[in-house]
Amino acid sequence: MHRQDYTSLTQTFEDYLSAHQPYGSPDSLYEPVRYINELGGKRIRPVLLLMAYNLWHEDITPALPAAMAVEYFHNFSLMHDDIMDEAPLRRGKETVHHRFGRNAAILSGDAMLIRCYELLLQAGERNSSGAQLCLMMCKASLEICEGQQLDMDFEKLSSPTEAEYLEMIRKKTSCLLGISLQLGAILAGADEVEALALYAFGEKMGLGFQIQDDYLDTFGDEQLTGKQRGGDILRGKKNFLYVHTYNTLSPPDQKDFAQQYDLAATRQKIDPILRFYEKQNVIDYIHQIQSGFFDDATSHLKALDPERGASLIDFTKSIMNRNF
Amino acid sequence: MHRQDYTSLTQTFEDYLSAHQPYGSPDSLYEPVRYINELGGKRIRPVLLLMAYNLWHEDITPALPAAMAVEYFHNFSLMHDDIMDEAPLRRGKETVHHRFGRNAAILSGDAMLIRCYELLLQAGERNSSGAQLCLMMCKASLEICEGQQLDMDFEKLSSPTEAEYLEMIRKKTSCLLGISLQLGAILAGADEVEALALYAFGEKMGLGFQIQDDYLDTFGDEQLTGKQRGGDILRGKKNFLYVHTYNTLSPPDQKDFAQQYDLAATRQKIDPILRFYEKQNVIDYIHQIQSGFFDDATSHLKALDPERGASLIDFTKSIMNRNF
Repeated sequence: MHRQDYTSLTQTFEDYLSAHQPYGSPDSLYEPVRYINELGGKRIRPVLLLMAYNLWHEDITPALPAAMAVEYFHNFSLMHDDIMDEAPLRRGKETVHHRFGRNAAILSGDAMLIRCYELLLQAGERNSSGAQLCLMMCKASLEICEGQQLDMDFEKLSSPTEAEYLEMIRKKTSCLLGISLQLGAILAGADEVEALALYAFGEKMGLGFQIQDDYLDTFGDEQLTGKQRGGDILRGKKNFLYVHTYNTLSPPDQKDFAQQYDLAATRQKIDPILRFYEKQNVIDYIHQIQSGFFDDATSHLKALDPERGASLIDFTKSIMNRNF
Repeated sequence: MHRQDYTSLTQTFEDYLSAHQPYGSPDSLYEPVRYINELGGKRIRPVLLLMAYNLWHEDITPALPAAMAVEYFHNFSLMHDDIMDEAPLRRGKETVHHRFGRNAAILSGDAMLIRCYELLLQAGERNSSGAQLCLMMCKASLEICEGQQLDMDFEKLSSPTEAEYLEMIRKKTSCLLGISLQLGAILAGADEVEALALYAFGEKMGLGFQIQDDYLDTFGDEQLTGKQRGGDILRGKKNFLYVHTYNTLSPPDQKDFAQQYDLAATRQKIDPILRFYEKQNVIDYIHQIQSGFFDDATSHLKALDPERGASLIDFTKSIMNRNF
């Protein structure tokens, strides 16, 4: 069976998304939706859904509305998170609340969340899986809200542990990657065991995905990531690098490190932090933990037909070692 | 068949709601949900759902989760609308964003919206109506978002018409009353014609309900409504009384009236507005239009078994002529 690669699935999804931009009355509700849909991004969640569906069926057309549903969920969460984080920029462009105002970002975000469930219910009509897909998505959605709340609370913790950090990103990020794969599998008619295995695979891969994000924020190539290098350090955002370093330092060094990390956002605050990271071998540790997540993620693929599982391995490597 | 009255249904719902308050981790996500659930209110939407269900079944227990779903939707919309309107008070208590912060009100509102769909899907499991209930709710939810956007846009219109006002409140308020009845009917196993008739009945009754709200805002008894009389006038909020009066005045009077209505919020601005209302017989007009909505609403009950339809008539009168 022919399966599409990441690039091809992305292109298929992009075409579908732009052919299905929403219009309605009043347009002031729908314009911000079209705007955020056009901002681009990696489209990883819809592509994961399509990839899972494609494990069973060559023609992915019936999965496109569900793929759009998870992208809508993701964009809803970006709209609301950007208000909460007071972020002016997203993917190098103005955030929705900066461009259209806070109220528009709240309300158009609500509309995207609603449309996510509507799309899933419609996608499931052909094989009567709508209620199941939507219920799974609701449960995941609540976990993701809990993750966002944990993230906001996390910034107030004085000594966050690695376990707390991983639980937060599991809910905030990994859960949506896992559910995207699981929804694709259910829609394809996979059995519960296979669908759950894909969820578990996606969840572990998602932890690696987010830690790669944290790594790239500090050590990535700005040309490839499109983000200012050291953004988390500048903003004093406690990411995985911070948490690991903090927890491996001696108490006096912890204090110095935390104070340095909390300084106002100037380029000069970055180098001393990088020296702490070097001293604590944070890059080596990230390679090591990523390798563990990779093994853990791929172990779940054993529940699938070997030929199906194998087709996901290369993709997993590329997504966890990405430099963009 | 014994049917519960409004008071009895309200009490049954209150007991269920308080026995099912949400707890989870982090508690910072769920505390605002419990807070708004405890703020009280008329519980009209869940009671309408139970009342519709009760037309077919004496035991309303199976409809309670769906009733909670529409109350969750309503409370989600209050949390977000209060941020947008920058309202400090709701039912005489601090609004969620005032008490817990804007971010909590956004995120806990999102969680309530998600939980609304989850509850509907769970409620529908017993007779496999979950997907249908949830899809109907999604469609209504989008209309309600459109209504909220129309409401915000409405304030910027220089010469709003009565038709524009009615279309706005149809989407913003009536739609949720209609869908509450329709969901109760579908859950009860009513046929499509009966369920649609109840939607249409609720929609027209909802227009009357909202216009009564506007009337009470200006002419109600503060002891009964729990709201400051003349609040809409003070805030310059363009309600039905404003729109009707504006559109029946001569152009020079229109200008005077609009200028007076736009003045800063002082008690002195109220009396001149009341004189305009008196001159334009706005109270008589409201009685007349309410009577039209009542006839229109009750005409849809003909699609039901007469005994079922009759049981809703008294309730309709009481809700449209309420003074609380």
